Amino acid sequence: MNIYKAVIIKSQLLRTISHSLRNKNRSTNVLCALSVRNYNNNSKEEHFKVKWNVNNKYIIAAISTGIGFSSYYYYNKKDADCAEVQPKHETVRRDLPTFSAQDVSKHSNEKTGVWVTYGIGVYDITKFISEHPGSKKNIMLGAGVSIEPFWHTYQFHKEAKILKMLEKFRIGNLKPEDRISIQNQGNPYDNEPVRNLDFIERSKIPYNAEPHLTQLVEHFITPVELFYVRNHLPVPDIDINEYELEVDITSTGVSRTFSMNDLKTKFEKAGVTAVVMCGGNRRSEMNAVKEVRGLGWGGGACGNAIFTGVRLCDFLTAMGVKSDEKSHVILEGYDRDPTYTPYSASIPLSKALDPRGDVILAYEMNGEPLNRDHGFPLRCVVPGVVGSRQVKWLGRIIIGDVESDSHWQQNDYKSFSPSVDWDTVDFSKAPAIQHMPVTSAICSPNPDHHEIKFTADGKMEVKGYAYSGGGNKIIRVDVTWDQGKTWHPADLVQLEDGENVSAGRHYAWTLWNINVPVEKNQHYVEVWSKAVDSNYNCQPETFKNTWNLRGVVANAYSRIGINLK
Amino acid sequence: MNIYKAVIIKSQLLRTISHSLRNKNRSTNVLCALSVRNYNNNSKEEHFKVKWNVNNKYIIAAISTGIGFSSYYYYNKKDADCAEVQPKHETVRRDLPTFSAQDVSKHSNEKTGVWVTYGIGVYDITKFISEHPGSKKNIMLGAGVSIEPFWHTYQFHKEAKILKMLEKFRIGNLKPEDRISIQNQGNPYDNEPVRNLDFIERSKIPYNAEPHLTQLVEHFITPVELFYVRNHLPVPDIDINEYELEVDITSTGVSRTFSMNDLKTKFEKAGVTAVVMCGGNRRSEMNAVKEVRGLGWGGGACGNAIFTGVRLCDFLTAMGVKSDEKSHVILEGYDRDPTYTPYSASIPLSKALDPRGDVILAYEMNGEPLNRDHGFPLRCVVPGVVGSRQVKWLGRIIIGDVESDSHWQQNDYKSFSPSVDWDTVDFSKAPAIQHMPVTSAICSPNPDHHEIKFTADGKMEVKGYAYSGGGNKIIRVDVTWDQGKTWHPADLVQLEDGENVSAGRHYAWTLWNINVPVEKNQHYVEVWSKAVDSNYNCQPETFKNTWNLRGVVANAYSRIGINLK
Repeated sequence: MNIYKAVIIKSQLLRTISHSLRNKNRSTNVLCALSVRNYNNNSKEEHFKVKWNVNNKYIIAAISTGIGFSSYYYYNKKDADCAEVQPKHETVRRDLPTFSAQDVSKHSNEKTGVWVTYGIGVYDITKFISEHPGSKKNIMLGAGVSIEPFWHTYQFHKEAKILKMLEKFRIGNLKPEDRISIQNQGNPYDNEPVRNLDFIERSKIPYNAEPHLTQLVEHFITPVELFYVRNHLPVPDIDINEYELEVDITSTGVSRTFSMNDLKTKFEKAGVTAVVMCGGNRRSEMNAVKEVRGLGWGGGACGNAIFTGVRLCDFLTAMGVKSDEKSHVILEGYDRDPTYTPYSASIPLSKALDPRGDVILAYEMNGEPLNRDHGFPLRCVVPGVVGSRQVKWLGRIIIGDVESDSHWQQNDYKSFSPSVDWDTVDFSKAPAIQHMPVTSAICSPNPDHHEIKFTADGKMEVKGYAYSGGGNKIIRVDVTWDQGKTWHPADLVQLEDGENVSAGRHYAWTLWNINVPVEKNQHYVEVWSKAVDSNYNCQPETFKNTWNLRGVVANAYSRIGINLK
Repeated sequence: MNIYKAVIIKSQLLRTISHSLRNKNRSTNVLCALSVRNYNNNSKEEHFKVKWNVNNKYIIAAISTGIGFSSYYYYNKKDADCAEVQPKHETVRRDLPTFSAQDVSKHSNEKTGVWVTYGIGVYDITKFISEHPGSKKNIMLGAGVSIEPFWHTYQFHKEAKILKMLEKFRIGNLKPEDRISIQNQGNPYDNEPVRNLDFIERSKIPYNAEPHLTQLVEHFITPVELFYVRNHLPVPDIDINEYELEVDITSTGVSRTFSMNDLKTKFEKAGVTAVVMCGGNRRSEMNAVKEVRGLGWGGGACGNAIFTGVRLCDFLTAMGVKSDEKSHVILEGYDRDPTYTPYSASIPLSKALDPRGDVILAYEMNGEPLNRDHGFPLRCVVPGVVGSRQVKWLGRIIIGDVESDSHWQQNDYKSFSPSVDWDTVDFSKAPAIQHMPVTSAICSPNPDHHEIKFTADGKMEVKGYAYSGGGNKIIRVDVTWDQGKTWHPADLVQLEDGENVSAGRHYAWTLWNINVPVEKNQHYVEVWSKAVDSNYNCQPETFKNTWNLRGVVANAYSRIGINLK
């Protein structure tokens, strides 16, 4: 039995989905995927243009180890390719035995030990399972088989440091004839959008990047080209004429689909000015205190835009959805992994149905159709809530009585006590982040670039943003340049209360500025900011006492040191 | 012109209200008051049993200096009476000139200087006006007249330290025949309820007291006898058969009154388990860092009870009130000051109309009718919001387009930057506290009483509460006994999510406990707690950086030091 057959046997619950695609520019590829979900196919695959091109001889074992064998190091990485000339996993180790794919397939659970193959290496990763940042569930998909197809998607694994770590688990060599070949597979990332060259890339594949802070803070409404991009998977390329949004209401059995034309013509157009902020925004500052796992975001993993579309409360009410306290709205994207599992997250139904929650099925951003990186043709904008719930390329809405079971809802975007480490973490013990805590960031000057501006009377101009989730307005940003001996409220630029901006419904950010006095001969100044929101919550002082292993909700005081000379 | 006439002239805008009262035990007194408000009298005065008994010859000049000439020191005070045998204000100063009441009345604004009398002293308080913690508006009510009637209500002024400060402003003696006499006035505090003798009194008159923390934390539902009492004025003694709730809707002109029977029979009975927490809870800890003004609350100015009554959203909807983003709900109590001004506060209409806001017109607390100290017969319970908006002895609801103009809404219960002092504070620059920030308090053991409990294996039992406003659930309480080197999540006792407790609607507190390991020969241990809520907001580390001149929202880490030997 070769390794592919092993996958098939292992995946009895999985359903093979194989469709010829209308493939405008890329001819005769075949989409093959194994789905772990009881998914309504309809004609959706036709629009799902992240293609998994395969060798016709095989049903590709696209199942692998899930997200991130390890992302220990990837946040500092700009090049996802393996840098080694002769990678170890392509090298026979004469000191180790040789195994067949069938041998490997017999080690697919913790009782037998968990073996995987990569290249011609065979690895016993049993001890690593609990430490896998991409969850145990995902890594176990690769148990007993090759992780190669999956790493083809999650290419950040292919980093020298991670490969070196993998090699420590090496126990043998794979029979050459059992080697999986993905040489003929197309690259799922070969159809990515054109991007802003001036972005700071935090990962190339999948694409994650943020603007320079000094640019970000120049605009109250963040231009699309300065809006950070957080992708978990290849970017779908969706034909708007073929686009469908599916809605399934578990309790009533109602299931309907909507075209983009339906959304635009059957529902009132509404908008909200809202921040989207990544749960990992400012992670690099927390990482500086003690290493965390995750993309090394600076403070630019957020933006403030006008999102326009259909109010989710209108949409769901029209579908007959009644309010209750127990249901969740699961949002699935058209971006999918090799197992055909879509990106997915959920929010409480109470948030979705609250007219003051201002959740929008957005087809426009700053008055223009969404671009591909921001979810064309439709993303769900959930004001006040962490970015990871604001699902892009929205394909399906499910109203059910449980949260999304996705990795991103269950085993990511949660925070823990500072003493919890990867040996002791239990993701089921923390709630999925929804509303974001209060934060602020000093954006200008940039300590590295020395782009310091001075007023006519010699004061240093300092600018930043502040934001609090849950609709809470920023009421004050205090700034100190003497380590907290004195605090000085900054001038604020923010939306005023009005028809759609009011108590508990303030979803935009606040820009702030203050001029810091410096002495003529002063060589150095350290500036801190702390924001206070309308609940009188304020930022914690240090990252030390709020540290968490995933480096999320990193909202301690913002501190910069500036060399003046 | 004597001093009483001066008051009348000064108070052209005020309306004299004078009614004979049905006065069950106290016979023929007359209620006299000057109202600064265009108040609908109806028969309300009859139920307003905080009586201002007067000498029949006069319409009492019950207007005076407003709340708090100074509350600099009163928080440490247990006896509000002046302790001096021969108070200075009753002593003629031979070195100073003598003035008539008419002379004094000519100094009633900042242009002329502001003079007041107290006893036979004449004082020029012009320089103190901006520093008066009870607001400029209130202190100016006493300009040119006697402050004696007002201090008869706000008796915490009659403290040696405050009298000493007043004496510094002395400029003369009042003609003996112009002296105001309040000797024949009944004491508005002579009909206070019987109280728990074991409470820790923070002020006797008006009555403010909190339970011992070790007792508080023994009950998830706080027994009424352990529920802190925060009174701003004498406690009304209301006949439930005469009780009326008035409702005025400014925009439509609708005005209606409801009896208690109406409330109980015309509306569905509903309840909520909710914390009421004073804005000054834990103030004494902030004061320990740097002096603040206000009652010296420990951590016991909060409790968690079941409040039952009428949902305000049902009530207002039945009155035809429609949701909008600009209106406020003004809540007035039957407790009034000598100017007949009721205690008053307001909340946004959006909170009041939100079914998930769970605002209750409560006539029961823990299944029993409210007692007098807690607002008999009706208080407004506003879950998630600071106690000062949860108006007791509720007499009137006004739906209007502005907040309450009361002292307590406009010039109190607000927080500022740590560097703002009484010279620079501008209360109009900060929003009235509504939702309370996340907090926790270590309640047991009590460091002063050494009531330490140990487990069988020698660990010290530590208990406390945690709470966050705005409906946010506590998701974790981290405890450290090594100054934050390691943090340990405590075990939590809290309401589980269910029909009426869910995301954004968690209004009860969380009790927590943890057993702290101590060495056999250890002499001392310091324990800190910090809570994290469902928005992932957490407590700030220190009071130093969150200090504010009023000592409100004091939510830094709770820290206790315990001597083990």
